[in-house]
Amino acid sequence: MKGERFSFQLLKEGEHGRRGTITTPHGAVSTPAFMPVGSQGSVKALAPADLQEVGTEILLCNAYHLYLRPGTEVIRNGGGLHRFMGWEGPILTDSGGFQIVSMSALGKVEPEGVQFRSHLDGSSHFLTPEKVVQIQEDLGSDIMMTLDDCPPYPASADEAKAAVELTTQWAKQSQGVKANNGQALFGIVQGGVYPELRSQSAHELMEIGFDGYAIGGLSLGEAKEVTFEIAEHVTALLPMDSPRYLMGMGTPEDILAGVRIGVDMFDCVLPTRCARTGVLFTSSGRLNIKHARYSTDTAPLDPACGCYTCRNFSRAYLRHLFLARELLAYRLNAVHNLFYYHSLMRDIRQALSEETMEQFVRAFVSPRGDTGDTSEDKGGETVC
Amino acid sequence: MKGERFSFQLLKEGEHGRRGTITTPHGAVSTPAFMPVGSQGSVKALAPADLQEVGTEILLCNAYHLYLRPGTEVIRNGGGLHRFMGWEGPILTDSGGFQIVSMSALGKVEPEGVQFRSHLDGSSHFLTPEKVVQIQEDLGSDIMMTLDDCPPYPASADEAKAAVELTTQWAKQSQGVKANNGQALFGIVQGGVYPELRSQSAHELMEIGFDGYAIGGLSLGEAKEVTFEIAEHVTALLPMDSPRYLMGMGTPEDILAGVRIGVDMFDCVLPTRCARTGVLFTSSGRLNIKHARYSTDTAPLDPACGCYTCRNFSRAYLRHLFLARELLAYRLNAVHNLFYYHSLMRDIRQALSEETMEQFVRAFVSPRGDTGDTSEDKGGETVC
Repeated sequence: MKGERFSFQLLKEGEHGRRGTITTPHGAVSTPAFMPVGSQGSVKALAPADLQEVGTEILLCNAYHLYLRPGTEVIRNGGGLHRFMGWEGPILTDSGGFQIVSMSALGKVEPEGVQFRSHLDGSSHFLTPEKVVQIQEDLGSDIMMTLDDCPPYPASADEAKAAVELTTQWAKQSQGVKANNGQALFGIVQGGVYPELRSQSAHELMEIGFDGYAIGGLSLGEAKEVTFEIAEHVTALLPMDSPRYLMGMGTPEDILAGVRIGVDMFDCVLPTRCARTGVLFTSSGRLNIKHARYSTDTAPLDPACGCYTCRNFSRAYLRHLFLARELLAYRLNAVHNLFYYHSLMRDIRQALSEETMEQFVRAFVSPRGDTGDTSEDKGGETVC
Repeated sequence: MKGERFSFQLLKEGEHGRRGTITTPHGAVSTPAFMPVGSQGSVKALAPADLQEVGTEILLCNAYHLYLRPGTEVIRNGGGLHRFMGWEGPILTDSGGFQIVSMSALGKVEPEGVQFRSHLDGSSHFLTPEKVVQIQEDLGSDIMMTLDDCPPYPASADEAKAAVELTTQWAKQSQGVKANNGQALFGIVQGGVYPELRSQSAHELMEIGFDGYAIGGLSLGEAKEVTFEIAEHVTALLPMDSPRYLMGMGTPEDILAGVRIGVDMFDCVLPTRCARTGVLFTSSGRLNIKHARYSTDTAPLDPACGCYTCRNFSRAYLRHLFLARELLAYRLNAVHNLFYYHSLMRDIRQALSEETMEQFVRAFVSPRGDTGDTSEDKGGETVC
């Protein structure tokens, strides 16, 4: 590790959200922040140089994926994850608890840890909370996540309570073995859709004490209103002076909603996954580049956008690349979508600083959905 | 069209090759030159910014592919091919005669032109030599190729003679309709493996008069010695003051051999296709990144290389990306392979200028093939 130790500075807090700065051994992150997802050590179709250009300040990688392939040893021996993937900025590693259950065959939660078979080759693995910390210390990420028990939705109150208790126990074990090396460790609040269990989980984690707190186990199938009711219930409990991370969300609308209830960090595969299906985020709503209407359209994706893609290419060219399955399509689309996300975060931070969030939200909502390219436009949801 | 008209300046000619400069409406090209292939209006996995960075001076695109998709109208209405694909440098468009026979269903050569069905949707098309010029004028390429009759190998002397005669007739028609707008038009020498037919073809084309001369119909299955015997037979006939283009070749070894018989221009899909199969060109031979031996190798692909890939990433990371099928793999590999090709051309040009080609060739051959990664290494051939 190099540079400064992890810290969080809350710059401003109001009824519409918080402005802050996270300091890590690999640099600072302005919050609210969006983290592009590079599960396997690469944000799909993008090089580190692109990420810098689109404004990425912190990446998310996945310890589960990297542990299975190429293996922790390979990365540790290669000088750690930053050097391995050529990214000098901050990295948060997810523990993989969620992926183990959702992706691997025979994923099974036991009191001592998680038993599973690799989704790649069927090999058997058993990961304890301590081992998961060790993996992330070997990777050398700036922010590590504890192993948590994230039951699938819907979970009964009994199931959710058991998951909270195991998550607390594992969080305690994780904090107990963590090296004092400048890497941060975040706890993950569970408790399903049950406010009292969320309270229990948050209080137990705060008692152990973490560098930051994540809200896990949401956006698994529950109604969107429930998601944000629960998330708001949790953020109201969490300490002011620690960063809060709403895991795996979401759409631009989700992010705005999350910011307004006091979330500082977000991650989602949406901008890069949509890029690969031809769905682009623009200042006037989603645009599906496959549509015939763009076949002769010489305008950029978004005339209001300053990204490399919009500065250099027309919708007609991007449509052509996509239909011809040219690899460049996925990259140019990803550059645009991440630039959009990071610009959104920058605008949000500015509105928070200048206390103009109400106007910002009104202006954000009004012009949207007018391309009509995706049926989800009107509801503010994107499935790509 | 903008800028200067097409011209060729021969700077130096010796027994080991020629140094020259091609001037086009979109800038100058130092020869001998290698043209990366962007058949569908994109060099696979690379953006124009990458091409500039790896040293590309001129691109090859394919009129056949672009005529079928997105269609000539789309590109013309979008301001021409340069603007459409965001590439401001020179572009050569291949006519597609070769692709029509090799890729399309029911490709059939008739005296008036070529009848074929699209490989994309089965639609019927008939292209005359005049139409092929028109397509390329609509695309606005800097160098256009005439439609030629390129029979598959092996062709009998009778078949080859008929192809020469039709190629000459079409070349005459092409030159007859070409606009006087600064775009260059190259004729294509045919004649199979028959020196006397090659002579006939070259002389007939020279009588019509073209801005440059291509050698087509080689590397179709004949022995490598035959390829270069025929190519040398042709270059010896062609005018000194016009550029010579050996179509569709080749390996670094092919290029060296071509330069030594007086070829000025090359194109090949090899560097970008190999990139997508994990075969990398290095100063000590081919390297297959899939090999287990690279799984923990922290060295760059080629310690002697200064490309973005070699400056930032290890073999272990590149192997990981390739095995994980990350899109970034294809791009980083393509960046490296094209950088290698363009560096090779730069070194060749320098050796020609300084009259050190003999030493250069000796030094080039000696360290090669030592990785043993591909069975073809020893023979100097790469199939990727």
